[in-house]
Amino acid sequence: MSSLWSPFVNSLKPYVPGQQSATSGIIKLNTNENPYPPSPRVQDTLRQLDADFLRLYPDPESTELSACIASYHNVEAGQVFVGNGSDEVLAHAFNAFFRQDKPLCFPDITYSFYPVYCRLYNIDFKMIPLDDNFVIDWTRYPEEAGGIIFANPNAPTGIFQSADDIERVLQAHPNTVVVVDEAYIDFVKPDATGSDLSAIPLLAHYPNLVVTRTVSKSRSLAGLRIGYALASVELIDGLKRVKNSFNSYPVDAVASAVTQASFADEDYFQSTCQRVVDNREQLVAALASLGFASLDSSANFIMARHATRPSAEIYAALKASNVWVRYFNAPRLKDFIRISIGSADENAELLSSLKRILAVDN
Amino acid sequence: MSSLWSPFVNSLKPYVPGQQSATSGIIKLNTNENPYPPSPRVQDTLRQLDADFLRLYPDPESTELSACIASYHNVEAGQVFVGNGSDEVLAHAFNAFFRQDKPLCFPDITYSFYPVYCRLYNIDFKMIPLDDNFVIDWTRYPEEAGGIIFANPNAPTGIFQSADDIERVLQAHPNTVVVVDEAYIDFVKPDATGSDLSAIPLLAHYPNLVVTRTVSKSRSLAGLRIGYALASVELIDGLKRVKNSFNSYPVDAVASAVTQASFADEDYFQSTCQRVVDNREQLVAALASLGFASLDSSANFIMARHATRPSAEIYAALKASNVWVRYFNAPRLKDFIRISIGSADENAELLSSLKRILAVDN
Repeated sequence: MSSLWSPFVNSLKPYVPGQQSATSGIIKLNTNENPYPPSPRVQDTLRQLDADFLRLYPDPESTELSACIASYHNVEAGQVFVGNGSDEVLAHAFNAFFRQDKPLCFPDITYSFYPVYCRLYNIDFKMIPLDDNFVIDWTRYPEEAGGIIFANPNAPTGIFQSADDIERVLQAHPNTVVVVDEAYIDFVKPDATGSDLSAIPLLAHYPNLVVTRTVSKSRSLAGLRIGYALASVELIDGLKRVKNSFNSYPVDAVASAVTQASFADEDYFQSTCQRVVDNREQLVAALASLGFASLDSSANFIMARHATRPSAEIYAALKASNVWVRYFNAPRLKDFIRISIGSADENAELLSSLKRILAVDN
Repeated sequence: MSSLWSPFVNSLKPYVPGQQSATSGIIKLNTNENPYPPSPRVQDTLRQLDADFLRLYPDPESTELSACIASYHNVEAGQVFVGNGSDEVLAHAFNAFFRQDKPLCFPDITYSFYPVYCRLYNIDFKMIPLDDNFVIDWTRYPEEAGGIIFANPNAPTGIFQSADDIERVLQAHPNTVVVVDEAYIDFVKPDATGSDLSAIPLLAHYPNLVVTRTVSKSRSLAGLRIGYALASVELIDGLKRVKNSFNSYPVDAVASAVTQASFADEDYFQSTCQRVVDNREQLVAALASLGFASLDSSANFIMARHATRPSAEIYAALKASNVWVRYFNAPRLKDFIRISIGSADENAELLSSLKRILAVDN
């Protein structure tokens, strides 16, 4: 703290991301990264870029990338807002929509950046407990909320709510912006009935809906920092006003070109997502055989707790074996470890370390 | 405007950047871009990047890039803060330092994003007129300012203040954060006496000083979005608290690698800056012969006004000839056009268009 800071800086409680590693030899299952590389078209694009064009500012409106995303999701280009990772998009959304005279409502267990944004923008908020099964209990959300936000699938539980659930929320709160953070939606197993998994089709009917997405996880592009929001033109315009009061050019020219290359390779995208889903199902089963119960995850991570051994201890023993998972020392979460889904080899290494730690083989 | 926006969104007056062009054949001298490409090492780095590493989040602290910048400027790594362009760095600085109970002071003619940030963060501000020669009059800055910010060289005047001037400001305002925005400092002609041009050496003595820089202009990397601040560890920590409450990972992995490649090629950097300075001197002389007077620029642009012909008319006629310069329809600025320094060929095209417009040949 410093007398030279703006006084509010002392009141901030910055977000703490999962640890990154500069060393090799780590089985890194702690920050929900994709174990598979991005589409080969990403490598081709990087190789073919003419560096000369970097001397020019990028398009401040990210017109091409927005059009690409709009076409992919079958919405209008004016319904797309692109930012420097979905964290930046979410930050602008909190500022643009949630500074209201009634409190913003979100689950007590969800992406832990949400209360951080509230402190940054002095937004009153109310954290509403998940039920005993870690599912959102919509009956507890007040009719007169200043806004609603949740992740779907939720993080770090991995639990998915159907689009029908979300439509009921939108109907119950027509005068409130509802943000659905779909960072993990691409890892939901397709519904047998063919129902929509995403809230995106609801955009056509609900002008108060914002859906946020990221290319970090399902497109293996966490290193690039591209996220986006889809919403009514009216809400996107609000985001643009805030963005254009903060940074005219948040999206760099390389990231824009590379992201478009990823969107052009649907087959690779689908097959990578499927591999992660398959690995998840296998890992859940293998963990069960070691005495772990997992929450029903639709994301690229699972929350698991062992029948007898404390999670903090397992987390530390894994770390000592160079297998990194994440542990949240928080109420209700401290019983679990969160494991990002690795490749088949990484998951095998994890299981082998767990067997040794749990002395299953002894 | 929308009833779903946070009410403050209506009060914003977003920044309007200079126009970017998707078409070729434009002589683009409107947004202070470098006419020369970045170092060849930038192209090599792009070609050699392994796309696989993009699946991982970048280092949230930009440790390697910060160390590279610290070493280049001979400061400690803890004195460096890297962001998504200097616009983002400036935005965080306004939030972290200038939300005070006394008004922030800056020149009436300077980077026009400053008042935009003030509206975004509800910062009281006072614009203090430049003197009749467009020079900052320090005697008009109140002792009890809530903060001071100015660009040096100033934009869009191009006028440079010596490090001695800046030291006097720091001495007069020891309890106030002073931000010196050095976006254009690399285009100042070296002093014949060898004096420091930058305020960076003053960091050793003034814990209230922040110097901001960008790689957009002098390093020909506007497309990448990398800027940084240098300051005392105490002030950098304030910036980090705000940044970590906004976006954990603002700097993407490609931009970080490419920027380091640029810093490793000092010879290329120096020679490019020198070419821009040489082109500026030649352009000023050539414009004088066409009846233009220019402010004394130390930047990669000049503010010029013609003896008899209105600037708005010249601006429009140039645009019709596919030569883009910038025109500010604002008090005291509307007499000028701002011309970014192009390559020798671009400047020749500009001069030829101007001759035709002014009918000098007729």
